[in-house]
Amino acid sequence: MLMQDVRNSLDIADLNQLKCDLNHLQPVDVGEYISELPEQQRAIAFRLLNKGQAIDVFEYLPTDVQEELINSLHDAQVVHLVEEMSPDERAELFDELPAGVIKRLLKELSPEQRQATATILGYPEGTAGRVMTTEYVRLREGLTVGEALSKIRRQDEDKETIYYAYVTDDNRTLVSVVSLRQLLFTFPEVLIRDIASDRVIKVKTEASQEEVAQIMKRYDLIAIPVVDREDRLVGIITIDDVVDILEEEATEDIQKLAGVSGDEGALSSPLATIINRLPWLLGIMGLYIGAASAIAPFQSVIAAVPVLAVIMPIFSNTGGTVGIQALTVTIRGLGVGEVTPKDTLKILRKELLAGAGTALALGITMILLSLIWARPQERWVALVAGMVMVTNTIVAVTLGTLLPMGLKRLKLDPALVSGPLLTTMLDSIGFLTFLTLISLALKVFHLKP
Amino acid sequence: MLMQDVRNSLDIADLNQLKCDLNHLQPVDVGEYISELPEQQRAIAFRLLNKGQAIDVFEYLPTDVQEELINSLHDAQVVHLVEEMSPDERAELFDELPAGVIKRLLKELSPEQRQATATILGYPEGTAGRVMTTEYVRLREGLTVGEALSKIRRQDEDKETIYYAYVTDDNRTLVSVVSLRQLLFTFPEVLIRDIASDRVIKVKTEASQEEVAQIMKRYDLIAIPVVDREDRLVGIITIDDVVDILEEEATEDIQKLAGVSGDEGALSSPLATIINRLPWLLGIMGLYIGAASAIAPFQSVIAAVPVLAVIMPIFSNTGGTVGIQALTVTIRGLGVGEVTPKDTLKILRKELLAGAGTALALGITMILLSLIWARPQERWVALVAGMVMVTNTIVAVTLGTLLPMGLKRLKLDPALVSGPLLTTMLDSIGFLTFLTLISLALKVFHLKP
Repeated sequence: MLMQDVRNSLDIADLNQLKCDLNHLQPVDVGEYISELPEQQRAIAFRLLNKGQAIDVFEYLPTDVQEELINSLHDAQVVHLVEEMSPDERAELFDELPAGVIKRLLKELSPEQRQATATILGYPEGTAGRVMTTEYVRLREGLTVGEALSKIRRQDEDKETIYYAYVTDDNRTLVSVVSLRQLLFTFPEVLIRDIASDRVIKVKTEASQEEVAQIMKRYDLIAIPVVDREDRLVGIITIDDVVDILEEEATEDIQKLAGVSGDEGALSSPLATIINRLPWLLGIMGLYIGAASAIAPFQSVIAAVPVLAVIMPIFSNTGGTVGIQALTVTIRGLGVGEVTPKDTLKILRKELLAGAGTALALGITMILLSLIWARPQERWVALVAGMVMVTNTIVAVTLGTLLPMGLKRLKLDPALVSGPLLTTMLDSIGFLTFLTLISLALKVFHLKP
Repeated sequence: MLMQDVRNSLDIADLNQLKCDLNHLQPVDVGEYISELPEQQRAIAFRLLNKGQAIDVFEYLPTDVQEELINSLHDAQVVHLVEEMSPDERAELFDELPAGVIKRLLKELSPEQRQATATILGYPEGTAGRVMTTEYVRLREGLTVGEALSKIRRQDEDKETIYYAYVTDDNRTLVSVVSLRQLLFTFPEVLIRDIASDRVIKVKTEASQEEVAQIMKRYDLIAIPVVDREDRLVGIITIDDVVDILEEEATEDIQKLAGVSGDEGALSSPLATIINRLPWLLGIMGLYIGAASAIAPFQSVIAAVPVLAVIMPIFSNTGGTVGIQALTVTIRGLGVGEVTPKDTLKILRKELLAGAGTALALGITMILLSLIWARPQERWVALVAGMVMVTNTIVAVTLGTLLPMGLKRLKLDPALVSGPLLTTMLDSIGFLTFLTLISLALKVFHLKP
């Protein structure tokens, strides 16, 4: 609703009203509004922001819009904006900028901020070191609560979180943590070392961002300290970044299951869409050549018993669905850390028990369906169909469970077995079993369709 | 690793060492350890915890273990535990307990906690009112910063978050918010009303928990106030709950796409597994009867041109994969709030552009494959197969985009179109088109296979 008001004031070209609105709205909303403007209007709207708001809004803009603004604003303003960004956001922006622009900007930054950016950019993408910020509150063990509080008060207001302070020794080694809450509830003359907790949950710079997210979720933390190999404090990761990481990871899991690689947005370009999806499709089709080649030699059997062509897609569809159900539950369980490879047997037992019930229900349904469609002389096919449906279901839950678990045990991404890959495997197995059994039956019992 | 140590000390039955470990580990780890113990040992281990740790650990136990402990601990201890739980956790527990036990416990609670629990339980499941906690810091507008800080210091240490304080007028109406950070950075004599921000982001008690989670994620909040219809402050929701809600929602999206309803865990019981999955399976199979019935009348065509039985599963598999890719990206985009129904045309255009490229690639592949498998006199089938592959791909991306968008526009759950449902629809359409065209070709051109 608020954004509607802003849009109206742009329509009537009342810049004063727009300026007032843009400076009173939440930075994230203003950021969204500016990114949705036509390119030539973005810099105009951005210049309407006062200093503090401009800094806040800038961090919420997509990287391409940030880059555009960097090219169209005055140099002094750009340097100010970039200087005031939090170091993790700045590193993310620098990742995308052309080398020339980065060089120019780095030269203008304060030594402290330049150092912070270089540190973060030194860690590989997707690690704790890369997503951390270097703005945090650090205290020495020997301080009193009162001294600590006045130190926190003197800190730059921009520190990402002041709700935890990290206590280090003379070598910058992380020794304990104290919350602002604890500081407030304690008498000023008490020593920090007497109230700080040495049960510090921390991560190494090289930890993967997913690992960090899972740890923070598990322990309900709003910030976690990041240490280097010598256990020296180098940064913190805050909960807002973790929320984004968890969503990204979930999106990746979902998309990989559907055979979409990369982190495709619903509004990605058609070309990016094709690039993310076509390799999967062609790969799957390639595999399917295997499945189809398995059927090809049986063409004469199908010509003799054409009801098979009606029954086979049902195997394919139902087996695929059963397999994908097991696969999805397993991959998601691994993704949220609910299960680990050591639970493989436990999950397999459960899947097989549930699968047996399902197999029975589906087998009986299959027999009934086949009886309906088959010509009188083909009724015996129903029995084979029912049997294969049962084994197919059992194979489907087994593969759906064991494949992702096996990949995880090999330290590979369990979502490498996408749904389409699994259904293709199941089709090959199912078709081959079914058609082989049918031709055997035709031969052995001299059945004539 | 820590847990490994604990397990060892249980093995050697050294209760003193175990007691020491259990009281020094993180509550969530101890909670996990106790839940994994055999039933008869849980109460023993729990009694080793000292008071504060027991309270913290209790909140992390699964509801069934909490219930078990309530039945095996002394009444006084139970009342103390339940009294000290945060009101939202307590409400969650009471949801599961038998009415008799709740009645007994409620009688023993302090009037204040009884009231808090009753308030939360009064809101429907899945709403902001149900997941909020009633423990928060409330300030009057007229206070000074110094008074506010000493009020916060006097508060119960257990308030879920003291990092934001909410400012209300005499009617308890929420008027503004002030962060602990602001309070610390301001001189004590300044009035709260002069520094508090009236741009308060808040939610109504009846807002859905997903909506709350999306808002907190968007604005990077660590807590959000919940107000009733008269705009009176009734509670807050904290970020740790939101992290759980976002994960639950993602899991639900993933599982629904795969045709699993409910919130199935990887370690759910076999019966729960069957209950969550079988209805989908049978429903899908039921629909498939439609698809198969569409093929049944064409049995004579298949008997005449058996290569069709080799080609048809490829349509089914590839069309299904293309459709599920589009469906998944759209549903996830809606789920994370990246797109809304007003973007339908934008997404459809992108999917169709990408789909056209994909369709061409797949169509050509299909022609080549059909040429390989067909007997010489059947080569014309390849052309029809290529054409149908193209239309099939286009139909797949169109349905994969429009169906979830349409459901969302009707305010229904877009994930109601699960992957298996979509593939079933695509199969019916694809098979029918293909077989109809083939029989037409056979008739019109008097082609003899």
